[in-house]
Amino acid sequence: MQEKNISIAGAGLVGSLLSLYLAKRGHKVEIFERRPDARKNLLDGGRSINLALSDRGLQALAKVGLEEKVLKEMAIPMYGRVMHSREGKLTYQPYGKEGQAINSVSRAGLNMLMMDEAEKRGVKIHFSQACADVDLENASAVYRNREGEERKVESDLLFGADGAFSAVRSIMQKTDRFSYSQEYIEHGYKELEIPAGPNGEFLLEKNALHIWPRGSYMLIALPNPDASFTCTLFFPMDGEVSFASLDTVDKARSFFEKEFADALDMMPNFDRDWQENPDSSLVIIRCFPWTRNAKVALIGDASHAIVPFYGQGMNAGFEDCFVLDRLMDEYGDDWEGLLKAYEVERKPDADAIADLAMRNFVEMRDLTGDPEFLLRKKIEVRFSEKYPEKWSPLYSLVTFSPEVRYSDAIALGKRQDELMAEIMSMPNIHENWDSPEVEERMLALAEKL
Amino acid sequence: MQEKNISIAGAGLVGSLLSLYLAKRGHKVEIFERRPDARKNLLDGGRSINLALSDRGLQALAKVGLEEKVLKEMAIPMYGRVMHSREGKLTYQPYGKEGQAINSVSRAGLNMLMMDEAEKRGVKIHFSQACADVDLENASAVYRNREGEERKVESDLLFGADGAFSAVRSIMQKTDRFSYSQEYIEHGYKELEIPAGPNGEFLLEKNALHIWPRGSYMLIALPNPDASFTCTLFFPMDGEVSFASLDTVDKARSFFEKEFADALDMMPNFDRDWQENPDSSLVIIRCFPWTRNAKVALIGDASHAIVPFYGQGMNAGFEDCFVLDRLMDEYGDDWEGLLKAYEVERKPDADAIADLAMRNFVEMRDLTGDPEFLLRKKIEVRFSEKYPEKWSPLYSLVTFSPEVRYSDAIALGKRQDELMAEIMSMPNIHENWDSPEVEERMLALAEKL
Repeated sequence: MQEKNISIAGAGLVGSLLSLYLAKRGHKVEIFERRPDARKNLLDGGRSINLALSDRGLQALAKVGLEEKVLKEMAIPMYGRVMHSREGKLTYQPYGKEGQAINSVSRAGLNMLMMDEAEKRGVKIHFSQACADVDLENASAVYRNREGEERKVESDLLFGADGAFSAVRSIMQKTDRFSYSQEYIEHGYKELEIPAGPNGEFLLEKNALHIWPRGSYMLIALPNPDASFTCTLFFPMDGEVSFASLDTVDKARSFFEKEFADALDMMPNFDRDWQENPDSSLVIIRCFPWTRNAKVALIGDASHAIVPFYGQGMNAGFEDCFVLDRLMDEYGDDWEGLLKAYEVERKPDADAIADLAMRNFVEMRDLTGDPEFLLRKKIEVRFSEKYPEKWSPLYSLVTFSPEVRYSDAIALGKRQDELMAEIMSMPNIHENWDSPEVEERMLALAEKL
Repeated sequence: MQEKNISIAGAGLVGSLLSLYLAKRGHKVEIFERRPDARKNLLDGGRSINLALSDRGLQALAKVGLEEKVLKEMAIPMYGRVMHSREGKLTYQPYGKEGQAINSVSRAGLNMLMMDEAEKRGVKIHFSQACADVDLENASAVYRNREGEERKVESDLLFGADGAFSAVRSIMQKTDRFSYSQEYIEHGYKELEIPAGPNGEFLLEKNALHIWPRGSYMLIALPNPDASFTCTLFFPMDGEVSFASLDTVDKARSFFEKEFADALDMMPNFDRDWQENPDSSLVIIRCFPWTRNAKVALIGDASHAIVPFYGQGMNAGFEDCFVLDRLMDEYGDDWEGLLKAYEVERKPDADAIADLAMRNFVEMRDLTGDPEFLLRKKIEVRFSEKYPEKWSPLYSLVTFSPEVRYSDAIALGKRQDELMAEIMSMPNIHENWDSPEVEERMLALAEKL
């Protein structure tokens, strides 16, 4: 294999992981990161939605030897969802089979761990280096530091791992036949906190993701190792019930008293959080092609930023690295063939998870409060546990089955929806859901999948 | 009314027309145009697809007193389409009722006429002034000349009429919650020429738009006042049959011999045109919002660039000006209300014509060669001529009925499609298309519209 000088713009989660994959193959890797080193200067105010690390992400971490370390040092497994009704009634729904979990991790913590590892393995990370220009023909780039000083960096190959607002992509956007979209959804989010209890205990079930589904909006909470929960309110930005309409902390508080009373009781810092934490927007980024001239390639959020409702944004970006690694085996030094294959293979999967994530928002905020929906899930889980080779629920395909492509999962999910509609229309399904008749019917229908 | 200092970025078709509307109301208007003055330096190489000026555009020109002048000085009416089969057989299809036509005009000629008029009416046009930056809060902008010298221009209001690759929009794109997409379609285009005949005569029917429909691609020709025709090949950029595959002029020539023999016979400069004229791409631009802070607004292609297949790109941009003018009557000095109403009203119409234009590509390149489709059109035209108050074909709604919004036209067209499917499934429709039974059925169905 021919050793290359490879630059990566962005030392975020995907840029750091990519550097580990490339360094492992003997390439000389340098990362240029816009922000200062978070390990020296603890930053806040940045995006900090907790992340749900699941099997696709874990598989990608395993390949560079980091799966166990991450699971052991920073992950809290969440085996299911706990739904909170307006009256404070709790309903539990497991995510998968016995023992299957998604993992709550801190974005910042995971990022720092991976930067440490990258540096240990010979990757050089330059901080406070904003990408100011890219030469797409030559994989060279200009980086500007905080003092406004610019330096030009030449390399054989440049990866843009610089996130949803990628500077590398903004250069590509101006080239002919580069299709691109940025779509802001109606909802934004605000973070709030449920701190640990008086004795350092978790005030809610620790090993679960908590949801307060309220139809057109929702609150969620993920556990942190310090026994606090990071809560996120996903809420319309404008309109009758929106961040714009809750324009004083008093209005917000009385809204929470009505809608999220049990959560509010555990939020001593509600007033401060509401006022100080921003109303942040949510954007979906799609583009194609992802590569130019076999010299420059986009990866992670830079090529496909999605909404956070399937917990797959980071996992999809990590999977990009995993796929790229497989293609490096296949293509060897043929980077032109490799990068072409990479974008052609990954694009449909990126589109699929973007759509799935938007759909899951409806599921989380609305359907998880719907008994019909919960029953359907129960029937599917029961059947798939008994006949795992015949049926795997869509959520499991996406979350626990990295061997199934996102694009195949979405297609299979569509067929499952049709079949489950038949099951749910069986007479007295609410009483007979676990009867032999339903099981037989499921068996017959599953043949059609 | 309060007189304002208004800047317009872009002296193209829409920028020039907008300046006329604003000057008429007593505002002080200055235009900053990236290119040099085309009237001094005849340019070529730019985009020059002939334009089809139709009723929406004419209505907007009429309001500033330019309709007659344009029709008289530069327009060639086209009353219908002439389809050319591979064997050279011609089929004629009128666009509307007796006397209704779309008008072939030269983009450059029309633009120069409108710049002349704008200057006559007190608008100052500055050339070779590329928009380098915009302050969206203050409607000020920085323009850079060919020597790289920059100047800052303050104004009360700034319109970005700077086209599909708008610099003003690119600044707005970086602001929060600005949704945006640029979508390159699979097809591009190349221009070719059919010159006038030996005695200065038109070699094809003058008062028609010519189409060589070939399924997945097509050639079209529009008449020019000098008796030449500008031909445009709309063709896939990549793939088996594409610009990429016709990579020598010999390959292109033998392809034309097979597919467009009658046209090729009239193209003495085919080899030169094929080699010298670029393969240009086609892009669809969508975005929202179109205005910021009641200070900056996008108009024309800057806010909604579409593909050229409905002949509505310029007409839609002119209609933007016409609508804005009506809103100026309604809102007076309330520019905040006015600009909000403008973007909310125009966005669905811009989306509708974008979709219609894409669909019309399929109609032009494929369906105009389909006897079933031609029969359907014939039935519709016959019926609408007899019962004009009961039925107006979609093409007529879009092209000849400026009182109907694009968004209403697309909705009505959808319902018409369903009804015409019923008509076309009547037994022996090919023989009985003009029978009383079909007419009665149409009358009954039309009640449902």
